Amino acid sequence: MNKLERINHPLKQQPNGDWLWINIFRCSSGLEGPNVHIQANVHGAELQGNAVIFELMNWFKTNPFKGSISFIPFANPTAVNQKSGMYTQGRYNPVSGNNWNRNYINFMALDSNKTGFSLEEFVKENIKATDEEVRKKFKTELFKICDHYQNYVEQRAHGPEDGHFNLLMQKIASPSDIVLDLHTGPIAARYLYSADYQISSAAHFKFPHVLEIPSEFDGAMDEASFMPWVELTKEFKKQGRDLKNSFEAYTVELGSEERISFEEAKLDAKCILNFLKHKGVHDIEISDLPKVEGKKSLLKDYRTYYAPKGGLYEFCFSPGESFKKGDVIARSLSFKQVKNEESLSKAIEEVTALEDGIVVNHNTSASIASGQTLYQVMENVSNI
Amino acid sequence: MNKLERINHPLKQQPNGDWLWINIFRCSSGLEGPNVHIQANVHGAELQGNAVIFELMNWFKTNPFKGSISFIPFANPTAVNQKSGMYTQGRYNPVSGNNWNRNYINFMALDSNKTGFSLEEFVKENIKATDEEVRKKFKTELFKICDHYQNYVEQRAHGPEDGHFNLLMQKIASPSDIVLDLHTGPIAARYLYSADYQISSAAHFKFPHVLEIPSEFDGAMDEASFMPWVELTKEFKKQGRDLKNSFEAYTVELGSEERISFEEAKLDAKCILNFLKHKGVHDIEISDLPKVEGKKSLLKDYRTYYAPKGGLYEFCFSPGESFKKGDVIARSLSFKQVKNEESLSKAIEEVTALEDGIVVNHNTSASIASGQTLYQVMENVSNI
Amino acid sequence: MNKLERINHPLKQQPNGDWLWINIFRCSSGLEGPNVHIQANVHGAELQGNAVIFELMNWFKTNPFKGSISFIPFANPTAVNQKSGMYTQGRYNPVSGNNWNRNYINFMALDSNKTGFSLEEFVKENIKATDEEVRKKFKTELFKICDHYQNYVEQRAHGPEDGHFNLLMQKIASPSDIVLDLHTGPIAARYLYSADYQISSAAHFKFPHVLEIPSEFDGAMDEASFMPWVELTKEFKKQGRDLKNSFEAYTVELGSEERISFEEAKLDAKCILNFLKHKGVHDIEISDLPKVEGKKSLLKDYRTYYAPKGGLYEFCFSPGESFKKGDVIARSLSFKQVKNEESLSKAIEEVTALEDGIVVNHNTSASIASGQTLYQVMENVSNI
Amino acid sequence: MNKLERINHPLKQQPNGDWLWINIFRCSSGLEGPNVHIQANVHGAELQGNAVIFELMNWFKTNPFKGSISFIPFANPTAVNQKSGMYTQGRYNPVSGNNWNRNYINFMALDSNKTGFSLEEFVKENIKATDEEVRKKFKTELFKICDHYQNYVEQRAHGPEDGHFNLLMQKIASPSDIVLDLHTGPIAARYLYSADYQISSAAHFKFPHVLEIPSEFDGAMDEASFMPWVELTKEFKKQGRDLKNSFEAYTVELGSEERISFEEAKLDAKCILNFLKHKGVHDIEISDLPKVEGKKSLLKDYRTYYAPKGGLYEFCFSPGESFKKGDVIARSLSFKQVKNEESLSKAIEEVTALEDGIVVNHNTSASIASGQTLYQVMENVSNI
Repeated sequence: MNKLERINHPLKQQPNGDWLWINIFRCSSGLEGPNVHIQANVHGAELQGNAVIFELMNWFKTNPFKGSISFIPFANPTAVNQKSGMYTQGRYNPVSGNNWNRNYINFMALDSNKTGFSLEEFVKENIKATDEEVRKKFKTELFKICDHYQNYVEQRAHGPEDGHFNLLMQKIASPSDIVLDLHTGPIAARYLYSADYQISSAAHFKFPHVLEIPSEFDGAMDEASFMPWVELTKEFKKQGRDLKNSFEAYTVELGSEERISFEEAKLDAKCILNFLKHKGVHDIEISDLPKVEGKKSLLKDYRTYYAPKGGLYEFCFSPGESFKKGDVIARSLSFKQVKNEESLSKAIEEVTALEDGIVVNHNTSASIASGQTLYQVMENVSNI
Repeated sequence: MNKLERINHPLKQQPNGDWLWINIFRCSSGLEGPNVHIQANVHGAELQGNAVIFELMNWFKTNPFKGSISFIPFANPTAVNQKSGMYTQGRYNPVSGNNWNRNYINFMALDSNKTGFSLEEFVKENIKATDEEVRKKFKTELFKICDHYQNYVEQRAHGPEDGHFNLLMQKIASPSDIVLDLHTGPIAARYLYSADYQISSAAHFKFPHVLEIPSEFDGAMDEASFMPWVELTKEFKKQGRDLKNSFEAYTVELGSEERISFEEAKLDAKCILNFLKHKGVHDIEISDLPKVEGKKSLLKDYRTYYAPKGGLYEFCFSPGESFKKGDVIARSLSFKQVKNEESLSKAIEEVTALEDGIVVNHNTSASIASGQTLYQVMENVSNI
Repeated sequence: MNKLERINHPLKQQPNGDWLWINIFRCSSGLEGPNVHIQANVHGAELQGNAVIFELMNWFKTNPFKGSISFIPFANPTAVNQKSGMYTQGRYNPVSGNNWNRNYINFMALDSNKTGFSLEEFVKENIKATDEEVRKKFKTELFKICDHYQNYVEQRAHGPEDGHFNLLMQKIASPSDIVLDLHTGPIAARYLYSADYQISSAAHFKFPHVLEIPSEFDGAMDEASFMPWVELTKEFKKQGRDLKNSFEAYTVELGSEERISFEEAKLDAKCILNFLKHKGVHDIEISDLPKVEGKKSLLKDYRTYYAPKGGLYEFCFSPGESFKKGDVIARSLSFKQVKNEESLSKAIEEVTALEDGIVVNHNTSASIASGQTLYQVMENVSNI
Repeated sequence: MNKLERINHPLKQQPNGDWLWINIFRCSSGLEGPNVHIQANVHGAELQGNAVIFELMNWFKTNPFKGSISFIPFANPTAVNQKSGMYTQGRYNPVSGNNWNRNYINFMALDSNKTGFSLEEFVKENIKATDEEVRKKFKTELFKICDHYQNYVEQRAHGPEDGHFNLLMQKIASPSDIVLDLHTGPIAARYLYSADYQISSAAHFKFPHVLEIPSEFDGAMDEASFMPWVELTKEFKKQGRDLKNSFEAYTVELGSEERISFEEAKLDAKCILNFLKHKGVHDIEISDLPKVEGKKSLLKDYRTYYAPKGGLYEFCFSPGESFKKGDVIARSLSFKQVKNEESLSKAIEEVTALEDGIVVNHNTSASIASGQTLYQVMENVSNI
């Protein structure tokens, strides 16, 4: 049985004085190997990752592996605890409106007075170091950068709540080789966001849908995690050396929000374990993986259908289903056009598909104003 | 083709000056017969009733019937339009917190200075009138009572928003013989609330579940509708005459909230049409009704399971499913008891059934604080 | 220096597993004397009572007194922590919509199977006991009733969150002779709710405004606290003995919400200390009390002005100010009537007073839909 | 009397089918002169601008001027109508969390496939045109760009709600020479945001506080309005010609949110009229302007104090007040450090100023979690 260690971190003191805590569970093999960081529930209603972490903890407790794994279930207690009616209102900070997964920092893009770090200098100094030395030193630098930036931000007694949370996640993840940020969609299929440079590795998740994103920064945890390594690789290149970027980070979308299923969590855990095997974390064959013919699209082909009018919408396709150009994908109901028995049929209008695609997710509610999201879909789909 | 007439009623002026409207659709047969009042969507997220009204309007447009029907889809625009995150936050007034279905008025319990009406006097005056005359006059009185009470409430320039809405619904419904208030549960089965005195009539809905409520007042539309007739019957009894109470009102629960399904709406409409046939509104045989063995419980046996602790809950039984005393009905996930690999199994705790029962509904979210609702269930179930 | 003891009570486990706590601070004189219960912040945005409790704790720490005092600042952590935008959204439970100060229990009105108590029996048994004995025994019974009722409610593993909180407050308060529930209004004057039977005692608060309420139950803490004693007195009367009801409970409104002021808290504390001196808790002269000519109204003369239309409202009178019938008390701004330069003046409409009165509070926002509260005012005012 | 024309624009259809409208009021002098665009209430609780627009409309109705003015009061109906409790919850879209004043578009930074426009080409073509011709043509291009971009965005039947609103405001403002976006702070002083290039012009507002921002883009209306003109000027420079940028745009902060005051609005209107006189819109002397010694800071010296701990905060300085380094600017109250009579004094902690400054605004609530905003202050202040 491997050791599981719990580290308690006070995150936020509420107005009444009680604290919200982050609990980090660290499982160490005692052997050299990759450091893996797995966090869940950064958005309040996106719960399934916590159940998946439970299944993974059970597996790693008893199976031999290399390196270490840090699990952070319930990563964002403010978000999971925030209720408005019976639903969890936790995609954004209820005070500031900031999306909890858009405030991470791209440290390589900041002035060195904020980070205490110069990438150019770092590469210059380590141009002759082995790959392994470079990686080790760079992780140490990333941790220091987090500290330095925290001091910069908190010079007015304290920094802002949003940034504080996001920075803490980055700091905990700084020594990692692999970062998995477990999310869910609204009413959604299972899908992955993968940077283009790691797309072949992504196939080992055996997920049905993959969105290929450019190696650029838009504020999310996966991007904030891989950007330093992408920039490091570029800077080495610039200074004349090819350094292999073996760091990988993914946003893993585990179906629909507001629910957990332990049975599905066992399957999700297998997919992640299969990926981790590929990455050398362990060498145990994972059986009973889902048999899927994975599909992928580029981010630019991940399209949103917005409601053309306000009304109640019936969704004609479920997450994971394919549709053809011209298919009726939604029907709206509204009585504002109905004046009498003649015009009753005007109560219903249809939304048709403009291109072939696959439904990735749809709105959690049928009650939708004009301009609010109906569907998010993959177009120009290819096999993985 | 029967006539469908639309009546537009301004309900509420928003702070920016734009109005929210109620649209009443009245379908008249031109023949003597019952007046039917069908409203939907008093709670914001409870949408399916609007689709059912659409199906019913289609049916009544083309089929012969007796009497008249008033349809009020989207009865409560404030509620259906109120969003918090992607969900509809419309079970209660977002300003006052008042549940939109608990502010109706039991006029018979009010002082006559508020209503301009004395039940004792009314019965005295009509003690010799025919049943039909009594009913007709009493409906007229109910309408006048609404007016009188409205004047009483609005003596400070205007009355409160909640009361204004509820009173308007009662006023529109005052000439009715049958009132159906279409709701849904959270994640829920299809079920009816029926007053005890009309329980045999309720069977004609062919609904799988019926909750039998006492003929008492707790603020809801069905109760506010039938209480005057219940009291009228009692007062006649007191003054020595048996008057049959043929008035009926139901809260009709059409499954889960935040969604619509036109296919299910066709079935729901059939159930309602079968009931209306029984009540003499039409005489067309309704085919393809659901084959259900209906179950009922008394309201006192409609029990809530609250969460014994805060955590994420997996629901082991779905709405409509039966469970036995001792069954594990929910599993909660929390890592606060987990200190190390030894105590990992403490992450999961079970909630077991204390009696046999049938799940009527469960929470829309798995993220639940201690004391929040897990399930509502029927116990001591009998066949209808 | 008197002893101050802290008792920590876990109130609610949040979905992430962290607890919200209630901290009770008990200050005991070691001498016979009244038990005083002072709680604050049951509604989330009503903060000033916490500062007043701090001032009172400082006073009681160092001054001689009789009996004991229990302070419960931040009584309702869910409410004070709940944010929506920058404001505290804590007048009602964000999940259920229940007003946190309307779920208390009138135990004397419940069946004895729920309370394990019969008032008639209790009086019968104690008809010969001294007043002091009766009071002591009755307090013990009240505590037991809370326990009994809690068991009744929690027979499904756990009771509902709202009830759990309210019942806990009642249980803590059960041995008290005096209960003060510290609230604030929205934008408000300082005022008291006092039951009619204790109205002469209320004058010792030296508050500018007093609302005299009947000795009836409407769900609030003060009512839930005094109702058992009112009923006890009645039952003794019924069984032929006059028992003086020396129990008193007040809802104390300390100005506007969403703010604290330590300077004002010192004044508020003096007013409460002056009242407590009158009740025999201490015998120290309180100096520098506010010089006010107190005004009172009956609850039936506490009137609400609702917005006649949607728009932005300027409030022409501040809390505490008097107005005359016919005065313009508010002006609304909306451009929906403005079509051109001719009709520009229609942008503004006036609300005039229908009777003389004093402003007790007004809406916290100028942005108001038709039917939402403008003002609450006292009419038919008399001197205390 | 000048003409006032009203243009009604449907903005958003709500789920119940009712529309929210934008009403544009256009006042034309019939003379050549600047086009002025004045909008208010983009954030829901920021109301005072609507009263100021009313005062300005009254002035322009009767006084001679040059050019034309478009007024858009209640610019964002979704925001002003959105209530959570008694407060307006309208700084961000309640569904998406997007700040309503951070979604405007910097068209000059977009690919020409999205805008149908090339700045380089435009300047090339107009390198010999007169300044006046350039301005006129550029305004026409800006309008076309809005159209082009709208088509690009709405290719999936409809665009997103946030973008739709922001784009509409930009489109309406595209022919303008002056854009004023009327906001308020939370509990705030009156202050201006001014781009550095127009800072001397800003003095004519006679406002007490000015924040000087760089001519860069961060998503706000003022920035989105001046950026095209800043870029145009740069491109002319690049192609060898000096073009004077006479376009100006400001965010005008009119004190605290959730309230209106017609008296203050008259003063605010005078300040704006004085500025417009400076810009040649009219030549009437504005009397009784406030006598202020205006202070300014750079945006980098506009600093936020965040709460170092959760608790209730008393604000020791009001908006507009100066404080010195070391001053106690806030006191927090929490009882979590209080264990007994000895530690009672720990209930209060102080926040001290780290530098000299002037309070611009503070939190609307005293109930604050760690990391939430206390104050925003100006440092390194200089006279205007």
